[in-house]
Amino acid sequence: MSTAVDLHREVAGRVARLRTLMADIGLDGFIVPRADEHQGEYVPPSAERLSWLSGFTGSAGMAIVLRERAAIFTDGRYILQVRDEVPANVFEHCHGVKQPVSEWLFAALNDGDKLGFDPKLTTPGQVACYRQAAGCAGACLIAVAENLVDCVWPDRPARPTAPIVPHGMTFTGRSSSAKCRSVAGKIRAEGQAAMVIAAPDCIAWLLNVRGGDLAYTPQPLSFAILHDGGRVDWFVEPSKPSDGLAAHLNSDVVCHPPDAFAASLTALGAAGKTVRIDPDSASEWIRKTLAEAGARLVFGPDFCLAERAVKTEAEIQGMRNAHVRDGAALVRFLAWLDAEAPGGAVSEIVAADYLEGCRRGEAYFRGLSFSTISGAGPNGAIVHYRVTSATDRVLGNGELYLVDSGAQYLDGTTDVTRTVPIGVPGDDMRDAFTRVLKGHIAIADARFPAGINGSQLDPFARRHLWEAGLDYDHGTGHGVGSYLGVHEGPQRIAKAAGAVPLQAGMVVSNEPGYYKTGAFGIRIENLVLVKQLEPPQGAEQALLGFETLTLAPIDRRLIVVDMLEDRERAWLDAYHLRVRETLSGALDSGVADWLATATEPLGTG
Amino acid sequence: MSTAVDLHREVAGRVARLRTLMADIGLDGFIVPRADEHQGEYVPPSAERLSWLSGFTGSAGMAIVLRERAAIFTDGRYILQVRDEVPANVFEHCHGVKQPVSEWLFAALNDGDKLGFDPKLTTPGQVACYRQAAGCAGACLIAVAENLVDCVWPDRPARPTAPIVPHGMTFTGRSSSAKCRSVAGKIRAEGQAAMVIAAPDCIAWLLNVRGGDLAYTPQPLSFAILHDGGRVDWFVEPSKPSDGLAAHLNSDVVCHPPDAFAASLTALGAAGKTVRIDPDSASEWIRKTLAEAGARLVFGPDFCLAERAVKTEAEIQGMRNAHVRDGAALVRFLAWLDAEAPGGAVSEIVAADYLEGCRRGEAYFRGLSFSTISGAGPNGAIVHYRVTSATDRVLGNGELYLVDSGAQYLDGTTDVTRTVPIGVPGDDMRDAFTRVLKGHIAIADARFPAGINGSQLDPFARRHLWEAGLDYDHGTGHGVGSYLGVHEGPQRIAKAAGAVPLQAGMVVSNEPGYYKTGAFGIRIENLVLVKQLEPPQGAEQALLGFETLTLAPIDRRLIVVDMLEDRERAWLDAYHLRVRETLSGALDSGVADWLATATEPLGTG
Repeated sequence: MSTAVDLHREVAGRVARLRTLMADIGLDGFIVPRADEHQGEYVPPSAERLSWLSGFTGSAGMAIVLRERAAIFTDGRYILQVRDEVPANVFEHCHGVKQPVSEWLFAALNDGDKLGFDPKLTTPGQVACYRQAAGCAGACLIAVAENLVDCVWPDRPARPTAPIVPHGMTFTGRSSSAKCRSVAGKIRAEGQAAMVIAAPDCIAWLLNVRGGDLAYTPQPLSFAILHDGGRVDWFVEPSKPSDGLAAHLNSDVVCHPPDAFAASLTALGAAGKTVRIDPDSASEWIRKTLAEAGARLVFGPDFCLAERAVKTEAEIQGMRNAHVRDGAALVRFLAWLDAEAPGGAVSEIVAADYLEGCRRGEAYFRGLSFSTISGAGPNGAIVHYRVTSATDRVLGNGELYLVDSGAQYLDGTTDVTRTVPIGVPGDDMRDAFTRVLKGHIAIADARFPAGINGSQLDPFARRHLWEAGLDYDHGTGHGVGSYLGVHEGPQRIAKAAGAVPLQAGMVVSNEPGYYKTGAFGIRIENLVLVKQLEPPQGAEQALLGFETLTLAPIDRRLIVVDMLEDRERAWLDAYHLRVRETLSGALDSGVADWLATATEPLGTG
Repeated sequence: MSTAVDLHREVAGRVARLRTLMADIGLDGFIVPRADEHQGEYVPPSAERLSWLSGFTGSAGMAIVLRERAAIFTDGRYILQVRDEVPANVFEHCHGVKQPVSEWLFAALNDGDKLGFDPKLTTPGQVACYRQAAGCAGACLIAVAENLVDCVWPDRPARPTAPIVPHGMTFTGRSSSAKCRSVAGKIRAEGQAAMVIAAPDCIAWLLNVRGGDLAYTPQPLSFAILHDGGRVDWFVEPSKPSDGLAAHLNSDVVCHPPDAFAASLTALGAAGKTVRIDPDSASEWIRKTLAEAGARLVFGPDFCLAERAVKTEAEIQGMRNAHVRDGAALVRFLAWLDAEAPGGAVSEIVAADYLEGCRRGEAYFRGLSFSTISGAGPNGAIVHYRVTSATDRVLGNGELYLVDSGAQYLDGTTDVTRTVPIGVPGDDMRDAFTRVLKGHIAIADARFPAGINGSQLDPFARRHLWEAGLDYDHGTGHGVGSYLGVHEGPQRIAKAAGAVPLQAGMVVSNEPGYYKTGAFGIRIENLVLVKQLEPPQGAEQALLGFETLTLAPIDRRLIVVDMLEDRERAWLDAYHLRVRETLSGALDSGVADWLATATEPLGTG
C-alpha cells in the first residue's frame, strides 16, 4: 500500500527526471498547469500532469519547476490540501493570490534563463503574464512542441476515447443546423469568416452530441471551426463517433481527424481570413498557428455561450422533469438520514454513497454531475470539501451536516445543497441558517426588470448575513447546463461585476451559505429558471423573476420562524406545498409520510 | 433683448470665424470641450468656450468643428436642452453614448486631415481616443499651443482672481502639514518622487484654504506639486492669496506664479524623477511636458482623494451642525410652501428664490452648493432640470413638486431633495413615492461589513421599484465635500462597479428617485455619514451603517402606510422625531407647529 511518504519520494524522483530533461534540451524551467488543450474545469487522466508531478489532486493550480527551485500555486481553498499532498521540500507552497506567479518568477528567474511552457495548455493571456514576469527578470519564455512531463511520465494514461452519441431533439428542442445557422449569422454580422471552438461543451451543444471523455460532464473532447456560412469542420478522433452518429449530424458538419486541425488553422490564415477565437478557451498554440499563417484575429466570447445559456422549451421541460426525479431521490435520502443518523451509524462516505444509490435508480440517470460534498460538523465549513477515508467523520449529535450533490440525467443536470441538523441544533446554527434562508428566498422571490445582471441581485442574498457582520466567500449562483457542465457561463450571481444581464430561459443556482470555521457549514441551494412575469400595471420594462426547479424540503428545525417576514414565510410554505404535491406520488408511503411532516406549514411547526 | 434667433445667428458667425482661423493655420478641425485646465465639474466664465461657441449652457459636452461639418456631443440628460440652445443648421446634435465621438470622427474626417485640440483642456485618455479615431480615418491629431476659440472670442472674460482665504483647524480638524506628511508618505511608499495635483479641490483640502473662482464650490484654481518629503510647490496667481494667508500656510508650502509650473514639471523630468499624475484631472499638456523632459510617469488616483473622503471629527461635527441650520431653513420653506402653493401663487422660480432666502440668513452661509432644481409636474421628471423664465411653471393642484437644493456653509456642505404634493396626490404618485421611500430607508438603515462598496448597496435602493417594473436612470449616491464640492469621489452608491469600499467617516448622498416622463418626478435625498456600529455577538467583521445627517420631514401625505414594513415605519417615525426634536428650538412657533404635524408618527397620520 502506497503511503504519503512513498508518494513524496516518488514526487521528488519525478521532478528530478524532469530537471534532467530540462538540462538536456537547454531549458532552465518548465511550467506545468492543471489544464488540457481545452482549458475546461475537468481534464482527462492523460492531462493530469500536475497531479502526477506534484501529488496535488485539486482542480485548480499550477507548478513551475526551475533548476534549483520549484513552486506550486493554488487558490485559498486548496492551501490545506496542498500541505497534505505536495512535499514541501520539493515544491514551495504558494497562495496564487497572495504570492502571484509573476512575483515568484521575477524573484526566482535569473538573467538569460529560458523558461519553457506548453502552448497547447496555456491561454494567450497567461502567456502575456508569464512573458512580462520573465522579461522583467531578463529571462525569456520558450514554447515547447512536446510537453516535457509527457516525456518523463512512462505510464501516462491514453487519451480518452469514449463514444460520442446523438443527443436528440426531444432533449435539445433545437436542431444542430438551426444552431449553426444562428451562430454563423453572428460571425457574419461581425465581419468574421470563421470562429474556432475550443470548448468541448460548446461543440456538444452546437452539434447536439454528448460523450464521456471527462468525469461528471458528458463532453467529448474535440475542436471545431464554424464558418460564416454555417459549415462546421469537426476535428475528432475517428473511433469516437458511435454507430449512427453520422446520420444524426447535420449535413454541414464535416468530420476530420484531430491531426488535421493545425492544417485547417493554417489554411484560414493563408487565405487571410478574419477569425474569432475565445481567449478563455483557445490556447496560445491556436492563436499562434493562426497568426503566423496570416489570419486576422478577433478575440471575443464564443458565440455559442450566449445562445446556449437561454434554454429551449424542451430543455426547460427536461430540467423540470429531471428535478422531479432528482427531488424524489433526495427526499428518500433525507428520510433515511433522519432515521439513521441520530444512531451514530452514518459517516460522510456512507451518506454520500447512499444518496448516489437513491439517484442511480432514477430514469435517465447517467452519473453524478460532480463529486458529492458530504461534510459533517467542521468539515461542512470547508467550502470545497471532498471526503476521503482519512477525513471521513460520523455525523455527530448536535452537528450540522451539509450535502451538496447533483446528477446528470439525459433530460437535465441537477445541483442541490441541503443542510440538516443531527439531533438538536444550537441557537447560533439556527440564527445563521435563518439568515442564509432569508437570502435564499430573497433571490428565489426576486422580481426585476430586464437588463439587470446577477451582480445586482447578489446583495439580496447576503443582506441578512451582512447585518450580523457575516458573509460567505463564494458566489451566490452559477449557470447550469442541460445534460452538460454543472458550471456553465456566462450568467452568474456574484459580487464580481461584468456579469451579463439575466434573460428568461437561463438557469442559475441560488446558493447562499455561511461557514463557521472549525464548527459548521450551512448552504441552501436550489436551481432556478429565469422567467418572464406578468408585468404589473404601470410597469415600464419587462419584469423577470425565478421559478425554482429543485424540489426538496428545507429543514424546518433550523428555522427561527420569528426572524422571517410574512412574505418569506409565505414563500417557504408555498414551496414546501409544491414539493409535497409534486413528489408524494413517486414515494412509498413511509417516505411520503416523512415528507408530509417535513413540509408542514411553518405556522404549525 | 437677445432672442434665440439672434443667438443662433451669433453662433453661426462665431463658428465661421473659428473656421477662418483654422484655415489660416492649416487645420481641418478643432475640438472644443466644456473643460478648463483642471477637468473639474465647474469651469470659470473664461473657460466657457463651448457655451460661447455653440450656445449650449449644460455642464457636460463637447463640440468638434470641421471645415464643412460640426457636431455637439452631450449625454442623454441634455438632449432637449441642446435642441433649444444650439442651432441645428450649424451643429449636428449627437447623443455621445449612442453616437460616440470616435464614430462621428471616423466618418467625418478625411485622409490627411489635421484635427487640432488644446492639450491643456484634454486628458491623456481623451487624446488616446481621439487619436485612434483620427488614425483610423487617416487623419492626425495636432496639439495647439494657444486655444483657437480664445483667438476669435473678443470679449472673453478674464480668468477669475477671487481671494484665497484660510480654512481653519476648527473646521478641518487636521493641519495642512499633517495632511502633506501623510500623502507624501504614500508617494514615498510607492517609490515615486512627486505627485502633480491638478484638481483644485484636492489642493484646497491639502492646504486648508478656500477660494471663490468657481460657482457653487469654494475652490481657488491652482496647480501644485507635492514632493515625497512633504514639500509643496504651489502655482497660484500672486494676487489671490488674501492678507494673512502666508502665515496660515504650512512652512513646507512654497508659492510660485502660475507661469513657473511648466519649468517645475520640466525640472522634475530633467532629474529623471518618477512622477505620479492622476489621469482624471491631469491634462495631456502636463503628461507631455513631464514625459518629454524625461520623467518616468505613474498614472494613479490622486492620493488626496482617499484621505479627504474620510472626514475628520471636526468635519463630521461641522456637517452635523450645518445640517441643523440647513434643516431649519428648509422647514421654514416647506411650511411656507404648504401655505402658499395651493393658492396657485408659487412658481418654480418663486419657490427656489424663497428657499435661497431662507438659507441666506443662516450662520456660516456662503452660497448655494449647486443651482437649485425646482420642478413642478412634468418638469420634476427632468432629472437635471434647471428652471428658466421660459420654462417656469406655477405649482399646480394635483401635481408633485420636486426641489433639490443645497448650500455651502463654512462648516459643511448640504444637498437635499424633497418631493411635495400640491393638493391631493394621485394613487400612482403615492405608490411610486412609497417605493422610492422604501429604497431610501433600505440604504439609510443598511448594516454591512467593512469591505462592501456602494455598488453592492445600490440594489437595495431600487428593489421595490424593480418589483413594479420601474427604475431610475441615475446613481443612488455621491460623495460630498466638507465646504468643498457637493460632488466628491471616490466613494459612491451606483450600479456601475469599481467603487471603493465604504469607510467610517465618509459622507454620501442617499437619493433614489422615480421619474414618469411628462407627468411627475420623485426623489428623496438625505446625506448620510458612514459610521462604525456596535458589532452584534458573533460578528466576524467590523459592522458599518449610516447616520442620516439631513434633517427635514419626508412628506407623509405621499406615503401608502400599508406598503411599509414595521422596520421601515419605525425608521421613519424615529427620523421624524429626531427632526422635530433637533429643529423645533430654532423655529418660530408657527413653523414649529407645522413641523410637529408634518412629523407625527405614521400610525396616527
